[in-house]
Amino acid sequence: MARPTPLSGFPEWLPEGRLVEQHVLDVLRRTFELHGFAGIETRAVEPLDQLLRKGETSKEVYVLSRLQEEELDRTAGLGLHFDLTVPFARYVLENAGHLAFPFRRYQIQKVWRGERPQDGRFREFVQADIDVVGAGALPYHYEVELPLVMAAALGALQEIGVPPVRILVNNRKVAEGFYRGLGLDDVEAVLRSIDKLDKIGADKVAALLVAEVGADEAQARACLALAAISGSDEGVIDAVRALASSLDVSNELLDEGLAELGALIRAASVRAPGVVVADLKIARGLDYYTGSVYETVLVGHEQLGSICSGGRYDTLASDGATTYPGVGLSIGVSRLVSRLLGAGLVRASRSVPSAVLVAVASEEDRDRCDAVAATIRSRGIPVEVAPSAAKFGKQIRHADRRGIPFVWFTGVDGAPDQVKDIRSGEQVDADASTWAPDAADLWPRVVPAEA
Amino acid sequence: MARPTPLSGFPEWLPEGRLVEQHVLDVLRRTFELHGFAGIETRAVEPLDQLLRKGETSKEVYVLSRLQEEELDRTAGLGLHFDLTVPFARYVLENAGHLAFPFRRYQIQKVWRGERPQDGRFREFVQADIDVVGAGALPYHYEVELPLVMAAALGALQEIGVPPVRILVNNRKVAEGFYRGLGLDDVEAVLRSIDKLDKIGADKVAALLVAEVGADEAQARACLALAAISGSDEGVIDAVRALASSLDVSNELLDEGLAELGALIRAASVRAPGVVVADLKIARGLDYYTGSVYETVLVGHEQLGSICSGGRYDTLASDGATTYPGVGLSIGVSRLVSRLLGAGLVRASRSVPSAVLVAVASEEDRDRCDAVAATIRSRGIPVEVAPSAAKFGKQIRHADRRGIPFVWFTGVDGAPDQVKDIRSGEQVDADASTWAPDAADLWPRVVPAEA
Repeated sequence: MARPTPLSGFPEWLPEGRLVEQHVLDVLRRTFELHGFAGIETRAVEPLDQLLRKGETSKEVYVLSRLQEEELDRTAGLGLHFDLTVPFARYVLENAGHLAFPFRRYQIQKVWRGERPQDGRFREFVQADIDVVGAGALPYHYEVELPLVMAAALGALQEIGVPPVRILVNNRKVAEGFYRGLGLDDVEAVLRSIDKLDKIGADKVAALLVAEVGADEAQARACLALAAISGSDEGVIDAVRALASSLDVSNELLDEGLAELGALIRAASVRAPGVVVADLKIARGLDYYTGSVYETVLVGHEQLGSICSGGRYDTLASDGATTYPGVGLSIGVSRLVSRLLGAGLVRASRSVPSAVLVAVASEEDRDRCDAVAATIRSRGIPVEVAPSAAKFGKQIRHADRRGIPFVWFTGVDGAPDQVKDIRSGEQVDADASTWAPDAADLWPRVVPAEA
Repeated sequence: MARPTPLSGFPEWLPEGRLVEQHVLDVLRRTFELHGFAGIETRAVEPLDQLLRKGETSKEVYVLSRLQEEELDRTAGLGLHFDLTVPFARYVLENAGHLAFPFRRYQIQKVWRGERPQDGRFREFVQADIDVVGAGALPYHYEVELPLVMAAALGALQEIGVPPVRILVNNRKVAEGFYRGLGLDDVEAVLRSIDKLDKIGADKVAALLVAEVGADEAQARACLALAAISGSDEGVIDAVRALASSLDVSNELLDEGLAELGALIRAASVRAPGVVVADLKIARGLDYYTGSVYETVLVGHEQLGSICSGGRYDTLASDGATTYPGVGLSIGVSRLVSRLLGAGLVRASRSVPSAVLVAVASEEDRDRCDAVAATIRSRGIPVEVAPSAAKFGKQIRHADRRGIPFVWFTGVDGAPDQVKDIRSGEQVDADASTWAPDAADLWPRVVPAEA
């Protein structure tokens, strides 16, 4: 077999990189659990008809067939999930009788999309989702809580060198109420145009609004004025109100949306100061979300795109009798980790778990070395035994190449064991039943790359 | 959407079941890391030509296609991996220049097989693998170490109610040397017949050996006599030697295999007494393994089949210039967890992470409740805030349904906060910045079901 080459869009990490990814996942999981989210996993496949309910994603689905099938029967088939929301909605319906609502769940799994791979976009990637879903109703306060849980989760990663994040929030009701109050009733068409702001600029968006939505010049300028509003305090709400008032725009949905957005900004300024920013031009997803909507950028890496997005659905799932509204966000873990590793922001302190390598003086002595290792390990210290009774210099290099900080030498003829810190060269007598490394050396640590 | 029904062969667990599975995975991971194994993950897909190199598994592979492809082009395609060995071999070749050998790795991931689902056999399941792979050579002592790591990992699960395991070991060299010494050179044909012992019995296997391998009656009886030998001490080795000697069978490979098997039994009797049993009829896998081979049964659940199998390959991978021998074992985690849950052996102490529910007296008071929760959480205590300002009785039932042991009441008008243990009904004054639950209540525990 010739040396294989990587498959584009299917990222894999070397052991050091996997340590970073695993640490990120551990921190996310712990933060979600500290906030009372229960973990679930769903199968990787869903029936195709479920995956294709939203037409826009159909092109991205990987379809499964079994090798012995003669032809591909797509109508009968299964596909790999492209997100964790569709499977979660199905899981909620399937298990509704066994779940307690509101149901708080996190889910960390791979998803697959048959897209053209490009920077930050993969065909296989890990997502970490949190959602709260209610049976029949779901109070607004969850739309405040969930982005703050993500702020806590991503904030907890700053100590390993992850840049701070900015969570951009908007509210579908504000946009829709404002447009309707202006007299523009094709809300989705307006949103589609506004969504192009960053790409084509304000003048061209204004032209689009006139040409495609039938707005007059004043209406177009008003939409752009709304989209230009952003900020991290309640002044944002005042600014929207002032704009609406100056245009004589008055709408109940707008008022409701502003009250919600204001509550989110107010809570965020207390619980995660400086992290949450209202940005009235955030349009993405507004066509299927019904309330709050969220996007998250890494400060200094904005061009990477959103690493954590989501929002409120009034109908996450429905079985006819009951409707399940939900609110949730999803972290693109692979996109984040790929940037952390690619930009050299984060590193692992060593490539293997072992804190100690037990040196082997001769193969006859291996049983004794195994016993020493078992004693050290029984106290929760990761340890391995050298692969061969090579010269000690070679065994020390074996440890050094892996970043293992300590080499253990079993004593001969009643002499005590000794342990050598191969970084300092210091070698001291040690007892396998009591010795312990510094806490900082016990497990590989994931740290900022410059540390 | 009507209520969906489960897909046969794709197991999913309710949150309580997932807690059990997650705990099993955490224990395995920790044990592997304490033994110095580095974690990796590989992508879910491999090129089909790689997956189909072993003809016998071809029928089990799920092939991927993208929805917009007009026809299924299987030669160009990708398939889902059906084990973690094929991807690991590819990973080793692809990254050989960046890995330090011998390379100790663990890998815990889902795999997929398009099999007919049946009890204990799934189409999607989690495997937990450990392997050591060398560049060019790999000393025998790893064949002793790896089953003992698995014995430690599975043994660590006994405290949550997992039955003890028995690891059955054999050695390809013993079987091959013995058969050749007897004059039977079609070793794989002999093994195929012996493999049917449990199904068809000794007399029919003897008849098969005569009819299909060309053995005479005495040779057939000798093969059966070897297969009948088992035991957990070195008496097994003596029994094989006595049998060979009585038949005038002498073979170098046999001697080498017996020395290896003896070393394994000897080390196991010290490091995992009573767990490892030499069983000379273990034939499965002997056609591609080249040394030790392992199978593992749950004591009392033998009919479930092996939950942890593996062995030694002289050629795990090869790029022409270098051959990479390996030895490893793989735990069928889904098979194990499915039995633990299905047989009611293990349970979680509650269904959600939260140790505390903060009750909400009125929605105006929610901000204060969120602040109290944040204070409690900042000290590593999982906590959530009640979904609504319902009557306290209803909020307590909300906690009770989820198994949350404590309900927190914020004090009004300067009165101290109080916390209620809803199991005992005891309610005491408490300070969010100092109160902590008993360690046993801090996180959900996974325990034997009778506890």
